[in-house]
Amino acid sequence: MTHTTDSAAGRLLAALRAPRLARAMGAHNPLSARLAEETGFDVIWSSGLEISAAAGVPDANILAMPECLDTAASLTAAVDVPVLADCDSGFGNVNNVIHMVRSYEARGVAGVCIEDKQFPKLNSFVEGNQDLAPLDDFAGKIRAAVDVRRELVVVARLEALISGLGMDEALRRAEVYERAGADALLIHSKRDDPDEVFAFREAYDGDLPVIVVPTTYNSVTADELQSRGFAMAIYANQALRSSVRAMRHTLTRIMQDGTTHHVEDELAPLKELFDLQRMPQMLDQQSRYEALGRELAEAAR
Amino acid sequence: MTHTTDSAAGRLLAALRAPRLARAMGAHNPLSARLAEETGFDVIWSSGLEISAAAGVPDANILAMPECLDTAASLTAAVDVPVLADCDSGFGNVNNVIHMVRSYEARGVAGVCIEDKQFPKLNSFVEGNQDLAPLDDFAGKIRAAVDVRRELVVVARLEALISGLGMDEALRRAEVYERAGADALLIHSKRDDPDEVFAFREAYDGDLPVIVVPTTYNSVTADELQSRGFAMAIYANQALRSSVRAMRHTLTRIMQDGTTHHVEDELAPLKELFDLQRMPQMLDQQSRYEALGRELAEAAR
Amino acid sequence: MTHTTDSAAGRLLAALRAPRLARAMGAHNPLSARLAEETGFDVIWSSGLEISAAAGVPDANILAMPECLDTAASLTAAVDVPVLADCDSGFGNVNNVIHMVRSYEARGVAGVCIEDKQFPKLNSFVEGNQDLAPLDDFAGKIRAAVDVRRELVVVARLEALISGLGMDEALRRAEVYERAGADALLIHSKRDDPDEVFAFREAYDGDLPVIVVPTTYNSVTADELQSRGFAMAIYANQALRSSVRAMRHTLTRIMQDGTTHHVEDELAPLKELFDLQRMPQMLDQQSRYEALGRELAEAAR
Amino acid sequence: MTHTTDSAAGRLLAALRAPRLARAMGAHNPLSARLAEETGFDVIWSSGLEISAAAGVPDANILAMPECLDTAASLTAAVDVPVLADCDSGFGNVNNVIHMVRSYEARGVAGVCIEDKQFPKLNSFVEGNQDLAPLDDFAGKIRAAVDVRRELVVVARLEALISGLGMDEALRRAEVYERAGADALLIHSKRDDPDEVFAFREAYDGDLPVIVVPTTYNSVTADELQSRGFAMAIYANQALRSSVRAMRHTLTRIMQDGTTHHVEDELAPLKELFDLQRMPQMLDQQSRYEALGRELAEAAR
Repeated sequence: MTHTTDSAAGRLLAALRAPRLARAMGAHNPLSARLAEETGFDVIWSSGLEISAAAGVPDANILAMPECLDTAASLTAAVDVPVLADCDSGFGNVNNVIHMVRSYEARGVAGVCIEDKQFPKLNSFVEGNQDLAPLDDFAGKIRAAVDVRRELVVVARLEALISGLGMDEALRRAEVYERAGADALLIHSKRDDPDEVFAFREAYDGDLPVIVVPTTYNSVTADELQSRGFAMAIYANQALRSSVRAMRHTLTRIMQDGTTHHVEDELAPLKELFDLQRMPQMLDQQSRYEALGRELAEAAR
Repeated sequence: MTHTTDSAAGRLLAALRAPRLARAMGAHNPLSARLAEETGFDVIWSSGLEISAAAGVPDANILAMPECLDTAASLTAAVDVPVLADCDSGFGNVNNVIHMVRSYEARGVAGVCIEDKQFPKLNSFVEGNQDLAPLDDFAGKIRAAVDVRRELVVVARLEALISGLGMDEALRRAEVYERAGADALLIHSKRDDPDEVFAFREAYDGDLPVIVVPTTYNSVTADELQSRGFAMAIYANQALRSSVRAMRHTLTRIMQDGTTHHVEDELAPLKELFDLQRMPQMLDQQSRYEALGRELAEAAR
Repeated sequence: MTHTTDSAAGRLLAALRAPRLARAMGAHNPLSARLAEETGFDVIWSSGLEISAAAGVPDANILAMPECLDTAASLTAAVDVPVLADCDSGFGNVNNVIHMVRSYEARGVAGVCIEDKQFPKLNSFVEGNQDLAPLDDFAGKIRAAVDVRRELVVVARLEALISGLGMDEALRRAEVYERAGADALLIHSKRDDPDEVFAFREAYDGDLPVIVVPTTYNSVTADELQSRGFAMAIYANQALRSSVRAMRHTLTRIMQDGTTHHVEDELAPLKELFDLQRMPQMLDQQSRYEALGRELAEAAR
Repeated sequence: MTHTTDSAAGRLLAALRAPRLARAMGAHNPLSARLAEETGFDVIWSSGLEISAAAGVPDANILAMPECLDTAASLTAAVDVPVLADCDSGFGNVNNVIHMVRSYEARGVAGVCIEDKQFPKLNSFVEGNQDLAPLDDFAGKIRAAVDVRRELVVVARLEALISGLGMDEALRRAEVYERAGADALLIHSKRDDPDEVFAFREAYDGDLPVIVVPTTYNSVTADELQSRGFAMAIYANQALRSSVRAMRHTLTRIMQDGTTHHVEDELAPLKELFDLQRMPQMLDQQSRYEALGRELAEAAR
C-alpha cells in the first residue's frame, strides 16, 4: 500500500506522523463538521457517542454499521479535512470488519478506528460490560483490515485501561496490534488525570503514532500532549455537549418568554446558517449555468 | 376519516383546534426533538431548513423526500408529542405528493405541511425564485393528499405573501385549499413585524386553524398570537441556530486554549447526554431480561 | 396485548392459528412480494437469504438490521398480505432485540422471527459455526420481544437440529420459548426428508403453532404438512432461485445471439411490468387530481 | 479532466470509444449485476425502470435520487465492470444535477445518463407527458455536470424522437449537448424497427459515441449496430423481465402442486446462490484471519 499525500487517507496519516500534535474534533453531522473545519481542526472524528446521542439511542451498538457509515460519509462529503471514523468494535466478527473496511473506503472516509472490546460494545464511560475481545480475535481483525484496505488508515483502540486489565495488558496488546499492521494506536482512559496515558506513552516503545481522547482528564493541554510525544488529541464530544446546553437554554427561554425576542442575540443569524449551507454558492452556480445554457441554446439557432 | 384522539395525527389535530395556542419547536434530529419535548413544546416541527442545514446543503430540495422522511420518522420514534413534517412543495407533481403522503403516514408521522411553491423550492427567506405553483396544480395536490391519507393531518402553507403576490391572492388561495380539504393553513411572512399575518388572520373567514412561523417578526408573543386567533406558532429554526452559536464558541475556545478545561461548564455533562440517550433505561432492561432469561432457563432443567 | 384481526399482525396470527396450513413465500423486493401475493400466498417471508443474495453478500449478518428492516418495510408497503421478517439471531444482544422489535413494529411489519444462534449467524445450510445461543440468553430475548411489542408477532426459530444438538434439545428449548411468550415456533431442518420435523411436531406437546421451511426436504406436500399438524410452510428462497436460473439463461442467449429477439417470448412484456408497478393507477390518479384541481381553481374565480 | 484508464469512469469511456460495440445489461440489484458480469457484458446499466419495478413503483421519479444512487452504488461495489447510471432527467434543476453528479462520483459510479425531459419524468414507453425540457435548461445541466465532475462520464440522452418532435430537433439538440461537453449521446426510440436510430446515426456528424437501447426494435443485432457505427447497446430491462416470467411460473406451480418438488430443476441450486454471494470466499477469509490472529497472539506470550 502506498499512501498518496493528496488522498484523505494520506493526509490523515501525514497528520498522525507529523511532529506537531494533530487535533481532531468530534462531529455528528456535516454542519458540526464544517464548524470544526472552519475553526481550524485538522481532523474530524465521526464520533460514535455523538452520532448515537444525536439519534437518541444509547452508545451501545444500537446504531448499526450502515448508520455510522452514512454519517461518516456525509461528514467526508462536507469538509476537506480528513475524517476518522469511530467504528466501535468492528460491528461483529472478522467478516463484518472486512465488509466495514471496504464500505468505509468506498465512501472516501480517511480512516477507521476499532476498539478491542466485544460486540455489542458499551460506551467506555458507562459502568457495565467493558470486557475485552480475546487478543487473537482482535489481532485477526486488525490484520484483515490492513490486508483488504487500499489506503484507509486503520487505528487500533486499546481499552485495557478502561476494562481494568491494566497497563501490562495495554502494552502487550499495543505490541500485537502493531505487528498485526495497525497504522496508529488510540489509548483510552477514563481517569480524571492524564497520568495513565502519560505512563502508557512512556512505556510504549513501538513506532506507531499514539492518539488520546482527553474527555475526563480535561485539564491536560495540547502543548503537554505534544511534548509527551502524542500524535493526536481527539475532542470527542464537546461540540455536541455545548449544543445540548445551548439548545436547552434557548428552548426554556422561548417557552417561558412566549417569544424568541430575548434570545435572538444568542442565535446564529439566518445568514450565517445559509453560508454554512453554501446557499450563496448554489445561487451563483445556478445563475452561471442558466446563463451558459442560454448561450448554448442561442448558438444553435 | 375519523381521527382517534390517541393517534399522533389525532393529537396534532386536537392541538390545532384547541383554544390555547399550540407551540411547535423545530428539530433536526431526535436529540433536539427530545429537548423540545422535555421543555414542554406541544408539537415537533421536522424543519426543512434545519434538516438541510444539519446536512450541510442549501434548503432548496437538495435533500430528497426519503431523506426528509427518514428524519421526520426518527423524530417520531424519539418523542411522544406529535411531529408535523415540513414537506416543502411536495417533492414533485401530484403523484409524488401521493407517494409522500403514504410514506409519511406509514412511518407514524402526525402531519405534513406542503407549500404552494414550485419544485425545487427555495427557502422563503432567500432572494430568488419564489414563484407560486399554479393554483389548480396545488389544489389538486391538497385534494389528493386528503383523499389518500387515513389520519395524517394535511397543512397547506400559503406563500403568496413571500412571493409578493399579496393579500388577495393569499386569501383566494386559502379559500381554495380549504375547499380542497386541507386541515389547517400556514400563512408565511418574512416581514419583521406581524402586521401582515395579523391582517390575514383578520380577513380570513374560513374555519381552518391558522399557523404562523414568527422567525423574522420575532417580538410577537404567544399571548398576542393566541388573542389574535392563531392556532399554532412554529419556532422553526431557533434550536439549531443556538447550537451553531454555541458550538462555534466552544470550538474556538478549545482551539485557542489547547484544552477543554475552560469550557467544561458550558457543556452538558456526559451524564445528561446519557440520560437523553436513555442509557439508564437500556441498562435496566438488559439486567431485567438477562435475569428473566436465567429464570426461564433454570426452570427447564 | 390484544391482536385486532384487521391489523397485519392480527392477520398473521390468525393465519398461524387457522386449521388450514398457511403458505408463506420468500421475497427479496416489492416486485417479488407482489408476484407471491397475486399467486395466492397467505404470507410474505422477508427472507434473510434472499435479501443477502440480492445484495450480493453472504447470508451471515453482513447486512445489518436497518437493511433487513428497510426491505421488510418495503414489502409491507407493497402488499396487503402480512409480512413475516427473518431477523436472524436478533442482531446482537437483548438491547438490540428490543430496538429491532420497536423498529419493525413502527414500520408495520406483521411479525419477526428470531433464531437461537449466535451473532453473527451463518446460513443454516452452510458448514461452519452453527452454535446455539445460550438458552438463558435467547429466552431473555424472546421475553423482551413480547414485552415491548404491541401487536407484532414473535416467532422463535429452533436451530437445535441444524446445530447437531438433537431432538431433546429442540424440545427443551421449544418449551422454554413457549413459556417466554413466543407466539409460534419454527423448527428448522436441513435433512432431505421431513422425518425430523415430523418427529418434532409429534413430540412437541405445547400449544404454539409450528412452522416449517421445506427447502431441502422438498418432496413433502402441503397436504402432508397440514395433516401432520403444522401451521405454516415457508417456501423461503425458491422465487429468487428461479429468477437466477432465468436471468442467467436470458443473459447468455442475448450475449450469444447479439439480440434479444430470440428470447422475447421468455420475457414478461413491458405492459406486465408496468401493471406490477401500478403505472395505470398512477396515470389515473394523476388525471383525476389534475381535473379536480382545475375545478377547484375555476370555482375560485 | 484526464481519465485514467484504470478508473471505472476511464474504462467506461474507453468502452464507448472502442471500435467494437460495447454491450450493457440492465440490472436492479448486485445479484443481477453479477450475473451480467459473469456472462460477459462490458457495462452494467443501473436501470431506472428495473429499479422502480423492483421497488414496486412506477418509473416516474417516484423513487428519488438517493434511492437510485444507493442502487447504482451497490452495483458498483458488486462488480468490476463499470456502471452507467440511469439518472432520469437529473432529479430537478441544475442545482439538483450538480448535487447528483457529486454524489454519484463520490460513490464510484462510472457514469451518469440524463435525459432531456422534464421533472418528474415518465417512462418513455408510456403514453403521457413526454415533453422535452427547454433546450437552454438542459444544455446548462450538461455543462454544469461536466464542469463539476472529476472523471464521471456524462451521457446526454435525447428524447426528441420519443416526444414526437422529430429528427431535426434530435440532431439540433445533439449538437448543443456536444458543445455543452457531453461525453456521449443516447438516442432513444420506441419504434419497433431501428430505422429511426439508424437515420439519426447517419445524420449525426459530431464526434460523440452514440448509444442505443433496442427494447422495442428487438430484432436488430449487435453486428448491425456495430457496422452502423453505434458505440454501445443497452439491454435495459430484459433481465428483470425474464425473472418476472420465471418467478410467476415457479410460484404458480408451487401453489398448485403444494410442493416445490416438481420445479426444483428450474431453480438455481443453493450452492450456486452461495457462490454468487461469495460465501466460500468469506469462509476462507474467516479461517485465514482467525489463524493469523492466533499466530499473532501466541507470539506475544
